[in-house]
Amino acid sequence: MVQLQRLAIAPEQIQNEHLDLTAEQQHYLGRVLRLKQGDRFIIIQDKGQWWIAELIVNLPAASPQAKLIEIVSIQTELPLEIILIVALPKGDGFEEIVRCCTELGVTQFIPVISARTMLKPSSQKVERWRRIATEATEQSERQIVPTIGDPVSFKSGLLTVQSGYQYICEARGNYQSLMQELISFETGEIPNKMIIATGPEGGWTQEEIEDAIAAEFQPVSLGKRILRAVTAPIVAVSQIVGIIEIGNREQGTGNSKP
Amino acid sequence: MVQLQRLAIAPEQIQNEHLDLTAEQQHYLGRVLRLKQGDRFIIIQDKGQWWIAELIVNLPAASPQAKLIEIVSIQTELPLEIILIVALPKGDGFEEIVRCCTELGVTQFIPVISARTMLKPSSQKVERWRRIATEATEQSERQIVPTIGDPVSFKSGLLTVQSGYQYICEARGNYQSLMQELISFETGEIPNKMIIATGPEGGWTQEEIEDAIAAEFQPVSLGKRILRAVTAPIVAVSQIVGIIEIGNREQGTGNSKP
Repeated sequence: MVQLQRLAIAPEQIQNEHLDLTAEQQHYLGRVLRLKQGDRFIIIQDKGQWWIAELIVNLPAASPQAKLIEIVSIQTELPLEIILIVALPKGDGFEEIVRCCTELGVTQFIPVISARTMLKPSSQKVERWRRIATEATEQSERQIVPTIGDPVSFKSGLLTVQSGYQYICEARGNYQSLMQELISFETGEIPNKMIIATGPEGGWTQEEIEDAIAAEFQPVSLGKRILRAVTAPIVAVSQIVGIIEIGNREQGTGNSKP
Repeated sequence: MVQLQRLAIAPEQIQNEHLDLTAEQQHYLGRVLRLKQGDRFIIIQDKGQWWIAELIVNLPAASPQAKLIEIVSIQTELPLEIILIVALPKGDGFEEIVRCCTELGVTQFIPVISARTMLKPSSQKVERWRRIATEATEQSERQIVPTIGDPVSFKSGLLTVQSGYQYICEARGNYQSLMQELISFETGEIPNKMIIATGPEGGWTQEEIEDAIAAEFQPVSLGKRILRAVTAPIVAVSQIVGIIEIGNREQGTGNSKP
């Protein structure tokens, strides 16, 4: 079943167990994947539900639609929300961050413009990031497509969401390691939301670190070596996911009729 | 001091506290970085020693050389060797792995050709990987440039080195998580060598998993989501580094005269 192709859809595309495909999705299923009448694929709904769907070709219009066949009971999401505040790195660096961190299980990206951010992203860029998140969701067999906000100032980013577990990663300075903080979740209760902020090339300014502390972020280290702006968020999320999935290993993969 | 530019050199370039620069290094220091007579930079020796060096311009030839000024006492290396066996991913994926995993502290890369590896790398590719490792060593302020072997078959790769701690990462199957294995090192003794193998797009074959088990590799999981071939090694190494640096936080940054 995991070999079936996956397609992320919006909830309003479903009407009476029927799926209205967009022109782009019709092209993808029909022309790229070459699926035919009766072929099956998996749809990933916005809120984490997977369904097996079956392609119907409506003649004479011949624009393929699909009907929902059965619900798929699968659990690939983490038991907590991970929200990543990322000071946009230069070039295409944020694309790499979105791709890897979506695979890892991040639920929300908040791109921010910090003092040392060089990039001024266009709205096309933001659309591209969202497409990459959708593709990475499908590829990694996740149930939820993470959200990506429009870029905001660093200070606004700090206040977008709140949690009792907020960390800002800083390469210089002698801070406690993120893992040292995480290790208590190995046996203790898992928080339901964690927020991580990572800086641009050149790092945060002293003022930004102070703003973050005032907004109840704890500065943490990711180790003794200096990581690039692209590498740091992937490392932080890898460590969180590793700790959270200890003692949380049951994985439902059965099917059930809707 | 950490603001000085860093340059990795081979041990045979040092003679009597003098540094013989290659033509490429002369170009880099003089033309790219625009250093002048008397300017200082940091050299990273093969075996982990850092020195402050000073540029000398030898007239009339005007080909810059350098003299060693003082040793730099710094400790950015991990207290263990991490050896990564990577089934080469398609495209330029291995470049991204070398860059990120060098930043993280890997000491040796063993690129292997597995059953599902699509890439047949040229010798120029191998040279390029080594240049990326050198650059990432300088940028991340490491003391040691990791070694990268020529690509070998998967079976040869399994037998290149040995350790009591050998893991093969596998996306499908219900294996214990890598982090579950690592967690015992939080308080216990740290191994001096750890070997991790990660697969290509499409994963390992069943036969490869069995070969790895016969060579005393333990199959482990990196979580419930399916990671790309490029992401998996970065995640595995991030988790190892996080656990190893707990309780190992002292960091020497002082200078001492040679």
